[in-house]
Amino acid sequence: MIDVHTHIVPESFPEYIGRHFGAPWPSMASAEGCHRHVMVSGSVYRTVSHQCWDCAQRRADMNRMGISRQVLSPMPELLSYWLEPEDGAVMCRFLNETIAAMVADSPQHFFGLAAVPLQDVDMAITELDHAVRHLGLHGVEIAGNVNGNVIGDPRFLPFFQAAVELDAAVFVHPLRPVAMDRLVGPASLEQVLAFPSETGLAAASMITGGTFARVPGLRIAFSHGGGTLSTLLPRLQHAWHALPQIRQAIPLNPLQSARQMYFDDLVYDAATIHRLIDVFGITQVLAGSDYPFSIMDPDPAARLVGLGLDTAALDLLRSANAMSWLGRSPS
Amino acid sequence: MIDVHTHIVPESFPEYIGRHFGAPWPSMASAEGCHRHVMVSGSVYRTVSHQCWDCAQRRADMNRMGISRQVLSPMPELLSYWLEPEDGAVMCRFLNETIAAMVADSPQHFFGLAAVPLQDVDMAITELDHAVRHLGLHGVEIAGNVNGNVIGDPRFLPFFQAAVELDAAVFVHPLRPVAMDRLVGPASLEQVLAFPSETGLAAASMITGGTFARVPGLRIAFSHGGGTLSTLLPRLQHAWHALPQIRQAIPLNPLQSARQMYFDDLVYDAATIHRLIDVFGITQVLAGSDYPFSIMDPDPAARLVGLGLDTAALDLLRSANAMSWLGRSPS
Repeated sequence: MIDVHTHIVPESFPEYIGRHFGAPWPSMASAEGCHRHVMVSGSVYRTVSHQCWDCAQRRADMNRMGISRQVLSPMPELLSYWLEPEDGAVMCRFLNETIAAMVADSPQHFFGLAAVPLQDVDMAITELDHAVRHLGLHGVEIAGNVNGNVIGDPRFLPFFQAAVELDAAVFVHPLRPVAMDRLVGPASLEQVLAFPSETGLAAASMITGGTFARVPGLRIAFSHGGGTLSTLLPRLQHAWHALPQIRQAIPLNPLQSARQMYFDDLVYDAATIHRLIDVFGITQVLAGSDYPFSIMDPDPAARLVGLGLDTAALDLLRSANAMSWLGRSPS
Repeated sequence: MIDVHTHIVPESFPEYIGRHFGAPWPSMASAEGCHRHVMVSGSVYRTVSHQCWDCAQRRADMNRMGISRQVLSPMPELLSYWLEPEDGAVMCRFLNETIAAMVADSPQHFFGLAAVPLQDVDMAITELDHAVRHLGLHGVEIAGNVNGNVIGDPRFLPFFQAAVELDAAVFVHPLRPVAMDRLVGPASLEQVLAFPSETGLAAASMITGGTFARVPGLRIAFSHGGGTLSTLLPRLQHAWHALPQIRQAIPLNPLQSARQMYFDDLVYDAATIHRLIDVFGITQVLAGSDYPFSIMDPDPAARLVGLGLDTAALDLLRSANAMSWLGRSPS
């Protein structure tokens, strides 16, 4: 079984050596036991455990969870799109070398996704090229927006074209999400409610903005079951049929476009996973857990078994769809 | 069959007689045939037909569509939350008298929902009291946010308490939605994608903000199937169980709260309506069409028949649930 949605944090960060005084460059501070604080701008961004960087601990956890391979991606906050591009490129290179070293430690256990400084599309393409061709990573994690610019914006088309040319899988994760001003309650509602809202709109923007029409062959997966996309899509599909201005602006049938995307199954509910399968297709859903963070699905393998699928369908969700998304032949 | 989601526009608007020069007060301009332009700040906001104000035309359309009663609510833009409160109160009073006259024209065909100047909660309560007790309206239409303040914000608790005391049904419709900066494509994506995102978050805010815990007996319905709520809810439910800070902040089980809300079935897709029934319950789903606007579901009665429900369930969706939401005994 392949878990496509797992995050890493390096055990430590290099000192900031850039030229921008006050840049929100992360650092590590000791915490209790095997934990460390990720510090940004003088305060604790998140307290993480050695599961984030310790390959042996990850393998032990995988063994316990019945996971044979994890796809490693950076904790999204580390994508650092708000740094100056040259600083962002330094951070991404460090992350990519860290992830490449983890993959090299256990190539039979890990696939690796790169970080790129998407605040500068040209530099992002350069870093993706390096990460794939020289570091051997298998794709790239990006956010649903880059400093407020949603990924369906045409400015990002050259990046997606480069991902296709490099045969790199793309994994979209929410970060600095939309709609924070609509939340009433504790701060963690950002992850709970704004994250899926962000992801649904990011995926929709790839459809309405025509990315899919212009970049054939793009292999892209959205986290958290695509967030709200499965509820946005029927309304978009109706509007595409009913409203001429929508039909003229969107070259491809929205539902057909969506069914070329991949979605992890991290929705915590069997009926909702069945809904993803019904909307997007049995070949488009991947297993994901959010390991090792507190909101993670503790037993993603049992979650899949509980769906009551036949063996062929279960195999698709457990690993074959992930291999297709990653562009790998089944092992 | 009761259609809970239909809009009206008055045939004309009174002249602006307030004190705020340049206020975006609407007016009507002639257009082709039976159409008129709703003008705001010198440009056409929307071109509408006499279906918006002509009771005889509405009854003819209802007869053709197999609808026995419509719930009339203002075109949401007319809620006018951005006017100074005293101007907003004038507009709302005019809308409420217009709707009351339409209901008086055909009381066996129409229920009426009021507009209130929710930019001032005290004035909104005063207007709701007048609309229900003196004009005989059956409830109130509100937006998911009021000038950016989402309706789960505690400032609106006195209004919802007043709605309960007046036995008024509440209908929530998106307006000036969140996430406009995440859209790539034609302007009408506001209605297609941002509207359901807004509504889902507005409904979630009523749960996470504790409105439901503090205002027992509130009868509230969300348009467009609750927007994205049905995909936000499983993640919220998981977080409520898994994250102590969420559990402590939200007094009631989120799923149980959601299953006390009502949702129209305006999602344009049988599988998605079934999903609403599965998530929220067969007693919480109402029939709605968005009559007479261009995105409307042209045949909501056939949509319900196509669900393949048994007679008892079909009766709930056709009318009994709407009567419960409106606080009326079955006729």
